[in-house]
Amino acid sequence: MCFVSEEYVYFKLTENVEVLRLLDYETKYFEALWEIPEGVVYNSYIVRSSSGVVLVDTWRIGYGDKLVGVLDKLGVLSELTHIITHHLEPDHSGALAELVEAKPGITIIGHPLSSKLIEAHYGIKVNFKPVRDGEEVKIGNLHFTFHHTPWLHWPETIVSYLHEDKVLFTCDVFGSYGVYREKLLSELSGGERARYFNLARKYFANVVGHYRDFVLRSLGKLLELVRKSEYVAPAHGLVLETRDAAYMAELYEKWAKSTGSRILIVYNSMYGFVEKAVNKLAETLKSKGYTVSTYAFTWNRRPLISEIIGDAVEASVLVLGVSTYENKIFPIIEYTTRLLVHKTGCKKTIILGTYGWGGKVSELKTMLESLGCREVYYYEATPSQLQDLIKDIEKVIA
Amino acid sequence: MCFVSEEYVYFKLTENVEVLRLLDYETKYFEALWEIPEGVVYNSYIVRSSSGVVLVDTWRIGYGDKLVGVLDKLGVLSELTHIITHHLEPDHSGALAELVEAKPGITIIGHPLSSKLIEAHYGIKVNFKPVRDGEEVKIGNLHFTFHHTPWLHWPETIVSYLHEDKVLFTCDVFGSYGVYREKLLSELSGGERARYFNLARKYFANVVGHYRDFVLRSLGKLLELVRKSEYVAPAHGLVLETRDAAYMAELYEKWAKSTGSRILIVYNSMYGFVEKAVNKLAETLKSKGYTVSTYAFTWNRRPLISEIIGDAVEASVLVLGVSTYENKIFPIIEYTTRLLVHKTGCKKTIILGTYGWGGKVSELKTMLESLGCREVYYYEATPSQLQDLIKDIEKVIA
Repeated sequence: MCFVSEEYVYFKLTENVEVLRLLDYETKYFEALWEIPEGVVYNSYIVRSSSGVVLVDTWRIGYGDKLVGVLDKLGVLSELTHIITHHLEPDHSGALAELVEAKPGITIIGHPLSSKLIEAHYGIKVNFKPVRDGEEVKIGNLHFTFHHTPWLHWPETIVSYLHEDKVLFTCDVFGSYGVYREKLLSELSGGERARYFNLARKYFANVVGHYRDFVLRSLGKLLELVRKSEYVAPAHGLVLETRDAAYMAELYEKWAKSTGSRILIVYNSMYGFVEKAVNKLAETLKSKGYTVSTYAFTWNRRPLISEIIGDAVEASVLVLGVSTYENKIFPIIEYTTRLLVHKTGCKKTIILGTYGWGGKVSELKTMLESLGCREVYYYEATPSQLQDLIKDIEKVIA
Repeated sequence: MCFVSEEYVYFKLTENVEVLRLLDYETKYFEALWEIPEGVVYNSYIVRSSSGVVLVDTWRIGYGDKLVGVLDKLGVLSELTHIITHHLEPDHSGALAELVEAKPGITIIGHPLSSKLIEAHYGIKVNFKPVRDGEEVKIGNLHFTFHHTPWLHWPETIVSYLHEDKVLFTCDVFGSYGVYREKLLSELSGGERARYFNLARKYFANVVGHYRDFVLRSLGKLLELVRKSEYVAPAHGLVLETRDAAYMAELYEKWAKSTGSRILIVYNSMYGFVEKAVNKLAETLKSKGYTVSTYAFTWNRRPLISEIIGDAVEASVLVLGVSTYENKIFPIIEYTTRLLVHKTGCKKTIILGTYGWGGKVSELKTMLESLGCREVYYYEATPSQLQDLIKDIEKVIA
């Protein structure tokens, strides 16, 4: 019972659980926002009970007919009795309309708020079973317990635990970007394993990051569930065994708190002046042993904002090198800064501003303060004087 | 006297004027901001007087040594006595430091504010000759008149007219993106000519657009100068003969006023709902005879903001299709809208907003109003109800 195509993979995970994974190389911008050249997968899980099949989450919107067809081909469609939806975002709920059309009257299980969201998104009324936090539901010979994990990352997010197979289904939580054909994260080693955690970090920061305080609130509950599970089965990425899932939970705490020692430098340079100053600063910091990540918006470079934000959850200091542009903050830096604060919170921030005929980069400090950031230092100079600021900035960082 | 290399072209324009054009295929982001897959050129003009050579503007920063080398090779360097700088942006002033080093004591001519900006950018003090608005300067047998055109697009922007050759040097004004080896715009015809005006429009909107009111204020003066010139010689793009320059001035007036009849639709669609509604709207509008430009930020598409803004100067109606994202305006749409208003001003704007669990897109209306836009209409619905808004929106546009 294993199938690998260009489009999806299918394999058995435990006695009653199979993974049906859509491989998506085509999405360039996750949520229409985050650049993901690495692609992404959507895991739908087939759970076989004595009274019928439970589908745990579906595929991305646009692949509904495909999913119905594959389930039919696998002989699963005729046995389908329930769909568990862990939250309503259409990368997981996207096949609901087609599935309900193929199986009228099928029971959808989810957070009490989800039925309203199903109607809001798909304009359909379904046979809906809401589940309370901690509620156990018996389906045939199997027992699921549902746990509310609000705002990870939708208001009505839940996770579910299948007792018989010791599988915890976590949907977006502990998920990752990347297209993988393996079953388990433990099949990856060395650089591939490190890359996976990098992509998981990027995913966390991009998708869950804004709700980092809710992550911290749910983490105790999640860790308890992880510890009694054999497998943690997210909707993106690979299945994690207990040890890897516990490690991922540890990373989640670290990322949610942004307690890393990295220095993140983001700058624009219209004509090279800011770049020269920032490079000098970065070299000095590196020579002092700091880990420095540098992202440059210049005449020939434009970094992926998804990756800047991914790095940011490991940084405790942010340096912004920025030009004045038509008497305003250079637009891309303003945009990136807003996203950084939204997704990863405030950090100790040092602004290195420059101007030719009008210095207005101090507005970036004002903007950060209006977003609640308190530790913001501001330095500005004309292009030819920028280098002279480096010594002062070093002192603030040290 | 004509030379074409991979890097630059050189040819005679009139008896005393030669064009020395750097071909820049490498800049992907003009001003580190505007996507220009078409590239750009920098025209420096060599003007030969009886008492020495005047260089009119230089090349982009980073090409200073190259320019000095080429001038030396052409036998011009030893004769160089003056540099006219029409404004200090480093895509034109970028070789000043190297030229002054090669020719200590050379006279730099510019707006009275420019000497301070030379020091601010390059940290050098130069032999500077400020020119008043309307001032005539005789160099050898030649007569230049200088005209102040403030804020096109720097505060100290000037243009200069060479009487003997009837050449008007306009620097950024009437310039264009694109890499061209031709001498004159009139050498292009058909689709190539249309493409040139499209690139000039994009350049105008991106670079000069924010100062559109100043364009209108200077346009009378410029048109008068254009009419007595035989050639209008900008620092980007091709040289224009009187007729083409007068036409370009006409377009500048139109673009500065954004009086076109185009409808510009810019939207994001996370999961296809907004896209479906917007496509329906666009089809209906097209069937009614409107010219519609549509730009979509989706899972697999990301348009060039430089081109959206280029189109915007021909639009009088803006439709924004936008998702709620984490209880805020979808970030790219907020960013693009801010740039659109900054560069092309307010238009009649219709917002088509959607939300799943929290509708906050009305904040986009508030934001536009805070930017001074008065005619803003707002409609919102859940994804499944979006289509129902189309009829109302059509009525507002009609």
